[in-house]
Amino acid sequence: VSESRFDPLAGEWRTFATARQDRTLLPTAEACPLCPGSADSEVAAPFDIAVFDNRFPAFEAGPPTPAPRSSGVAASKPAVGAAEVVVWSAEHTRSLAELPLEHLERLIEVWAERYADLGRRPEVAYVLIFENKGEAVGATLPHPHGQIYGYPDIPPRVARTLAVARSHLERTGRCIACEVGGFEHTDASRVVSEDRATIAFVPFAPRFPYETRIQPRRHATSLLDLTDPERASLASVLHTVLQAYDQLFGFSLPYVLALHQAPTDEPRWLDVAHLHIEITPPHRASDRIKHLAGSELAAGAFIGDVAPERAAKALRQLVQGPGELPGRVW
Amino acid sequence: VSESRFDPLAGEWRTFATARQDRTLLPTAEACPLCPGSADSEVAAPFDIAVFDNRFPAFEAGPPTPAPRSSGVAASKPAVGAAEVVVWSAEHTRSLAELPLEHLERLIEVWAERYADLGRRPEVAYVLIFENKGEAVGATLPHPHGQIYGYPDIPPRVARTLAVARSHLERTGRCIACEVGGFEHTDASRVVSEDRATIAFVPFAPRFPYETRIQPRRHATSLLDLTDPERASLASVLHTVLQAYDQLFGFSLPYVLALHQAPTDEPRWLDVAHLHIEITPPHRASDRIKHLAGSELAAGAFIGDVAPERAAKALRQLVQGPGELPGRVW
Repeated sequence: VSESRFDPLAGEWRTFATARQDRTLLPTAEACPLCPGSADSEVAAPFDIAVFDNRFPAFEAGPPTPAPRSSGVAASKPAVGAAEVVVWSAEHTRSLAELPLEHLERLIEVWAERYADLGRRPEVAYVLIFENKGEAVGATLPHPHGQIYGYPDIPPRVARTLAVARSHLERTGRCIACEVGGFEHTDASRVVSEDRATIAFVPFAPRFPYETRIQPRRHATSLLDLTDPERASLASVLHTVLQAYDQLFGFSLPYVLALHQAPTDEPRWLDVAHLHIEITPPHRASDRIKHLAGSELAAGAFIGDVAPERAAKALRQLVQGPGELPGRVW
Repeated sequence: VSESRFDPLAGEWRTFATARQDRTLLPTAEACPLCPGSADSEVAAPFDIAVFDNRFPAFEAGPPTPAPRSSGVAASKPAVGAAEVVVWSAEHTRSLAELPLEHLERLIEVWAERYADLGRRPEVAYVLIFENKGEAVGATLPHPHGQIYGYPDIPPRVARTLAVARSHLERTGRCIACEVGGFEHTDASRVVSEDRATIAFVPFAPRFPYETRIQPRRHATSLLDLTDPERASLASVLHTVLQAYDQLFGFSLPYVLALHQAPTDEPRWLDVAHLHIEITPPHRASDRIKHLAGSELAAGAFIGDVAPERAAKALRQLVQGPGELPGRVW
């Protein structure tokens, strides 16, 4: 089965790609498909940053056409779109936090280019750049890499977020993300790191205990909107947050990192889509995971065990040392 | 921190109960708070089924009042509601699947009574009965038990599902769950077990590979709607599905089980709320978990690795033996 199916009860498209069930699982460096020169390598040696199509794609430019469905409650369609792999480094164990800042700046250039390129394709409505890091979030390849999905529709959670932002804009005339960024800057209790262009904070009501959100302080809809100094600022704040994560519990912290930018299908989202990076580590303590269970999975109601202000303070102290207040350095 | 906070970016309430961070984790039978007679027991011995308030509640009848917030983007409120524990059995290791059918029937009576009782409370708008089974979904107590949350609002995922059902009803005049149940009965390829009153199936577009949905074949909004034979049918089909789960991979399968019934705040949901049990096991193979990662967490777009028809067939064969078609037995 390789198709998208509509769940009529949730009103959402879901995608099935059963060839993925047998994808490579946790290979050693000798068998790593992302290590240049390995027996099973998908990339030429040497490289700095490599991008290529996912060998086990959820979405493809020319997918198979599913069997036609007769019932109105069982709609399916081809899983058209894109699925790419971005390998950050030729080294098997170099995490994003461990890369030099200059390397992260080049990666952001690559992300911007892939967003522009995939966004121009008529079959792609939304480009999600993400990293699943660590076995705790299900990463199947330990070699540091990210992924890019080009969805044919605006995916469900993004659509809801944009609808909330649209409604706020109509009510107040303001971008909700701009307003939240300004509030967090002023309040300062949840700020992890910031400079003139970029702010990183633990949200007031996060889904995960050590979740952070990194966003431009001014309204920018994608990486393409940012000036060179703003991109450098984004790389620097991201680098700082990732390094704090790796110090938090004494091991390289697993997380899901997602870069959200404006949908690419039509321009009407530009006033409400605010570029941001969302990082959600699953740990709630060094030896405990925040599992999504009954309340989260069945009801969509998140229950948190850690005060957001306490999580922010723990991360901030790893950035700045104890005692300093954030957001007061310029 | 013990309060509900509104995330203005997602438009959702989330609840923080930081006392939960230190809750009991995986005790032995000697220290189990749910074993009658243990050193730390919360229940009197002997009992058949016991219900009591959660010692580490996310919601309470009389919660503390949070500090007032000044900004429009940082709203909080007391975490009012209910959080109960339902202990299925006095035995430390007896799972729901292993209990006699008669015991499951009595449990369904208890669930119905708790739904009625909590639903009458003015501070409760939605009653969710659920079980987090196994360390893979984060259960902190191995003693077989479920939980009940009484939410002060209709929680986000339920609200969206009800809105989809409302829209379908207005468009077609029919309950979408009734229509899906009829379709699955006729199609038969995803049915796991059914009788005259109840159907269990793997959804056409599930979120988890071995997800099942169990629902009355006629429109019923809660357990209170069911006749005695219908309740017995629900217990029997649930028992059958749970036993198939435990045979699937050769170990007692972890899952999240949720019983969804009509909201209890106002009667206007009765035409679109269809009683159902949703069971979501995280495993995609005996040694692999379907983790929620980039696409699911960041975009809300579920990617599946197992064909729903294949999952249903595997479960059905454990119920009926190979070769038999479901849904043709009366």
